[in-house]
Amino acid sequence: MYSIGIDIGATNTDLGLVRNDGTVIDRERLSTQQYDKAENYIADITSAIQQLLTRHDVTALDGIGIGAPNGNHLTGCIEANTANLRIKEQIPLGRALEEAFGTRVRLDNDANAAALGEMVYGGAKGMRNFIMLTLGTGVGSGIVIDGKLLHGTHGAAGELGHAIVSPNGRACSCGRKGCIEMYASARGICQNYIEALEASGRNTTEEEREAVTCQFVGESANAGDPVARKAYDTTAYWLSIALANAAAFSEPEAIFLMGGPTRAGEALLSPLQKYFEENLLFLYKGKIKLQFSTLTGNDTAILGAAALSAEL
Amino acid sequence: MYSIGIDIGATNTDLGLVRNDGTVIDRERLSTQQYDKAENYIADITSAIQQLLTRHDVTALDGIGIGAPNGNHLTGCIEANTANLRIKEQIPLGRALEEAFGTRVRLDNDANAAALGEMVYGGAKGMRNFIMLTLGTGVGSGIVIDGKLLHGTHGAAGELGHAIVSPNGRACSCGRKGCIEMYASARGICQNYIEALEASGRNTTEEEREAVTCQFVGESANAGDPVARKAYDTTAYWLSIALANAAAFSEPEAIFLMGGPTRAGEALLSPLQKYFEENLLFLYKGKIKLQFSTLTGNDTAILGAAALSAEL
Repeated sequence: MYSIGIDIGATNTDLGLVRNDGTVIDRERLSTQQYDKAENYIADITSAIQQLLTRHDVTALDGIGIGAPNGNHLTGCIEANTANLRIKEQIPLGRALEEAFGTRVRLDNDANAAALGEMVYGGAKGMRNFIMLTLGTGVGSGIVIDGKLLHGTHGAAGELGHAIVSPNGRACSCGRKGCIEMYASARGICQNYIEALEASGRNTTEEEREAVTCQFVGESANAGDPVARKAYDTTAYWLSIALANAAAFSEPEAIFLMGGPTRAGEALLSPLQKYFEENLLFLYKGKIKLQFSTLTGNDTAILGAAALSAEL
Repeated sequence: MYSIGIDIGATNTDLGLVRNDGTVIDRERLSTQQYDKAENYIADITSAIQQLLTRHDVTALDGIGIGAPNGNHLTGCIEANTANLRIKEQIPLGRALEEAFGTRVRLDNDANAAALGEMVYGGAKGMRNFIMLTLGTGVGSGIVIDGKLLHGTHGAAGELGHAIVSPNGRACSCGRKGCIEMYASARGICQNYIEALEASGRNTTEEEREAVTCQFVGESANAGDPVARKAYDTTAYWLSIALANAAAFSEPEAIFLMGGPTRAGEALLSPLQKYFEENLLFLYKGKIKLQFSTLTGNDTAILGAAALSAEL
């Protein structure tokens, strides 16, 4: 059987036809930023799906899953005024696709989609309790409790990127101080690098400091640069506090990390595992796996979205 | 219909016959510390239950619920070597009572029992997602997700007393630093008071400082003493960070507090509600109730235990 996974980003909308063994058979791509009206956007998504089905003679779908920023799983809509989307009205994509294809459609936020992708196709297969942390421009999270996504009272659970780890720490875009997002997002890691650079006494220009990217810090760390390593050490330390606190909440079987900053590999994972074990409450020491997502490459987001529609 | 609630403390074991409207009809008490063997302890609990049933001609029970320190809901046992219990072997109370009375028996830790008590008989009636924080010698928590207690992978979820709020803060008995327990338990509140006293410049003797109790701090705060009020302000501030982080995890409908320190009333609740709203992520502001347990007095623990056995 087949399902459709749709990964909606600010730049592109990626659609995939997914076989239930987790293979992405075929793809379509729309330019999200080309649209400013929900109606046209929905119509083009509908015909992109139709093309995928027609090309492969697929006549029945298990379902359609959509991962989207600000995706509301209760209404199947992308909320109005979502940051970075040109379409400013609410996008009722769930119901529209349900009517067009007569199949189950599940829409959820991208971190929740990532968590389900890991459970259905990745390293969390068979797990009933785990946490997925998505590191990127921000830090997001999808939490699985007893085999189901944790949604909370109004669908807003799982904002672990805004767990406060340093009450008088860096100012966060949310208006508070010391959220883990300020230390472990791509921008946070750059900030850790710049602070380590300043503390090192190494000569740099303001231009160089402004050009720092997370990818550069990762590559420098893996090339052995002590300043970049120090930056990941700081990232890992603060992240370990947030993860130790999350562990004390739900006692997950595992915590997974994915997203751009994980491309640093061992430069991040090795200090993180060390600090995590140190900072875990004794009850949990040695009992909670901490690893990167086993889903890598371009298919991750499509698989995550497709997983939303899978039978659990 | 009736159920039996058993609240096991280090000093006393309180048993209650509970009608399903939440009235405790009758009680029995054993001196926990009198026992050093599980076998005798179980035998005396069994006959205390029998007496309650006989006195009221009760021939059928909905179930038996037991709240106990270190209660393992998976095995129905109180773990071996539980701190403060004289009986050092494992106590297989669940199975013993199941066999003796032919009814469902649920044993769980005391904070989980308190959470269920609130859900079945108290202010959380009808709620599907909430958190109960128990303030006392330590800080415990019971977490309800989707109408069920959150137990985690091995039954050790919900250790919110050991959420780290101040990574370089006070040394905790768990071996780490800055757990909320060090700021919001009875001992933590006394410490907040002593620090406020020292900062105030008020003259005190070491004897006076050593004699400080949480009850004294509460009474002083309610009598208007600015030093005691400052102590609760500090308690409330740190607690608000832990609760804001817990909110970002599960987006509960409400957070309840119970236990000795809540007897301070508004001296704790008023600054806590203020800081909590301030420190909540914007998504949740104004949407999460923060209140004291509506169950008060001697029946709370028995009702909590009885609730464990109630149909949910």
